[in-house]
Amino acid sequence: MSDTIEILAAQVAFGNRRALAKAITLIESRRAADRTKAESLLAALPKPETPALRLGLSGTPGVGKSTFIEALGLMLVEAGHKVAVLAVDPSSARSGGSILGDKTRMEQLSRSPQAFIRPSPAQTQLGGVARRTREAIRLVEAAGHDIVLVETVGVGQSETLVAEMTDIFVLLLAPAAGDELQGVKRGIMEMADVLLVNKADGALKPQAESTRADYAGALGLMRPRPDDPKGYPAARTLSAQTGEGLSEAWDTIMTLATARLSSGALIARRAEQNRTWFREELTGQFLDHVQNLPAMKSAISDIEASVVSGALPPSAAARKVIESVFGETG
Amino acid sequence: MSDTIEILAAQVAFGNRRALAKAITLIESRRAADRTKAESLLAALPKPETPALRLGLSGTPGVGKSTFIEALGLMLVEAGHKVAVLAVDPSSARSGGSILGDKTRMEQLSRSPQAFIRPSPAQTQLGGVARRTREAIRLVEAAGHDIVLVETVGVGQSETLVAEMTDIFVLLLAPAAGDELQGVKRGIMEMADVLLVNKADGALKPQAESTRADYAGALGLMRPRPDDPKGYPAARTLSAQTGEGLSEAWDTIMTLATARLSSGALIARRAEQNRTWFREELTGQFLDHVQNLPAMKSAISDIEASVVSGALPPSAAARKVIESVFGETG
Repeated sequence: MSDTIEILAAQVAFGNRRALAKAITLIESRRAADRTKAESLLAALPKPETPALRLGLSGTPGVGKSTFIEALGLMLVEAGHKVAVLAVDPSSARSGGSILGDKTRMEQLSRSPQAFIRPSPAQTQLGGVARRTREAIRLVEAAGHDIVLVETVGVGQSETLVAEMTDIFVLLLAPAAGDELQGVKRGIMEMADVLLVNKADGALKPQAESTRADYAGALGLMRPRPDDPKGYPAARTLSAQTGEGLSEAWDTIMTLATARLSSGALIARRAEQNRTWFREELTGQFLDHVQNLPAMKSAISDIEASVVSGALPPSAAARKVIESVFGETG
Repeated sequence: MSDTIEILAAQVAFGNRRALAKAITLIESRRAADRTKAESLLAALPKPETPALRLGLSGTPGVGKSTFIEALGLMLVEAGHKVAVLAVDPSSARSGGSILGDKTRMEQLSRSPQAFIRPSPAQTQLGGVARRTREAIRLVEAAGHDIVLVETVGVGQSETLVAEMTDIFVLLLAPAAGDELQGVKRGIMEMADVLLVNKADGALKPQAESTRADYAGALGLMRPRPDDPKGYPAARTLSAQTGEGLSEAWDTIMTLATARLSSGALIARRAEQNRTWFREELTGQFLDHVQNLPAMKSAISDIEASVVSGALPPSAAARKVIESVFGETG
């Protein structure tokens, strides 16, 4: 068994795409036996010689995210990079994605041997998606991908999650009418390192520029990160369709990445991310352990009926269970 | 201390708005002493004589959610109801809301003595927001509000959370161009009991109707809930601005509520919700308890440095800690 895992790890490190896909399927599995194997696999992976750049990317449906990833990915592959695209989309839990799936997205990029694209797994819990994505990042890096794009949709918790597992967070926007600035949550603006207004082509070009200026103004009101170069967070326009502004947008991202790498900020950020990840793993594993304790099971079954009927508030009932298993909690 | 809590509970039950606001502030507090008080308060509340209708409402920014709530709330207040509006918006964690705040929203409704509006609390964790909102529902119901609207934004986990604490889930949409149906996640469509296309007025009216028809078609492809009357999930158009279609939309909601109440489905759903809530409370309280165990603290500090440096994968490190505190986990 352990032999097989060693072989899989070696295949992943050798850049075997099939092995990589198989390894990600393994870490996505929720079977206990697979989890043990997944941990062995992660432990057996070599560390990549140079750290990959981990890029978070968010944008609501309609901003042209797939077109952008396709254009950027193809540009980077052409420049000799190996690019991995991972998706974080907890809302796909029920059905495995939006009505139109991932299959028709990023068609050209998905055919490139230098690119690896993996859609979001179907998981009910944000925590499960987070673990899987962090581990998938480790896998694609071990497979030699030096640029890892982690994309997510919309307005919500998943942005925070992606920002917490990447080095730089990019927010993709569409040209907006005058008063639509309010639609973007301040919390998400605050996470963005680089803000890109897409669709700056044809008739929309002036509107894209004025949207960029509006956001640049809003970004100017926020506190800059102390270690970042002047001018960041930065706002740019581009057209993923025509390619105009794309390489300038990438330069904007790379200038920041280089600065953070040489200042030590990038390494410090990753150390902090490892700490958070460890805490979350601890939490998850505690819960698995305790929920299987016989004393816990019987205490729960004694009290559950009166909670379900509404007679006892859940918070008080939970306290009673904890006290009966572990003693007084104060 | 406990006297004060008894008095506060009585004041809430008497419909004192100031006491209600104070009680919600208490349950939102994360101080341990306040938590104990909050639990006493919840236990001291009388159960409302007739159950309130709990209505979940979701809609992305720009669909006119505030205008809709204002129009619906005023209509219901006029009809003699007491309406409470609670917001669930985990992404407001960092800054306390969108760039334009809640102050200018629902101006008329917020002045009505029969209405109580409470914005989303600033909480980092979805779990914290969920607990607070469930407890706030209990409080506003004890204060005599017979219709409780729980609103949330956008595309993500918060919809699931709101659907899981309400009786009926309403999705508000704007008229869309032909291919925008894909923007609404299938998972969210599947949660919706009633789908309302707003802005069916003026030039947008035909577009609203065709959007409604598109969604009705998509809903038709989904499995209906076995106990619901024929025709549900339902799709309607309305204009919150002009009021056209508003009372018909409300009738659509009430017909479903009445059917679910008389079939027993509503009570069964609440029992299931209580069970889930209890499990979540257990999880939260258990973690609080374990994280404060001295053995746990020392095991964590022994291993954390090698995780942070990247030498040890977080999942394997967490397993070591659990094993050292609780023994082998298998």
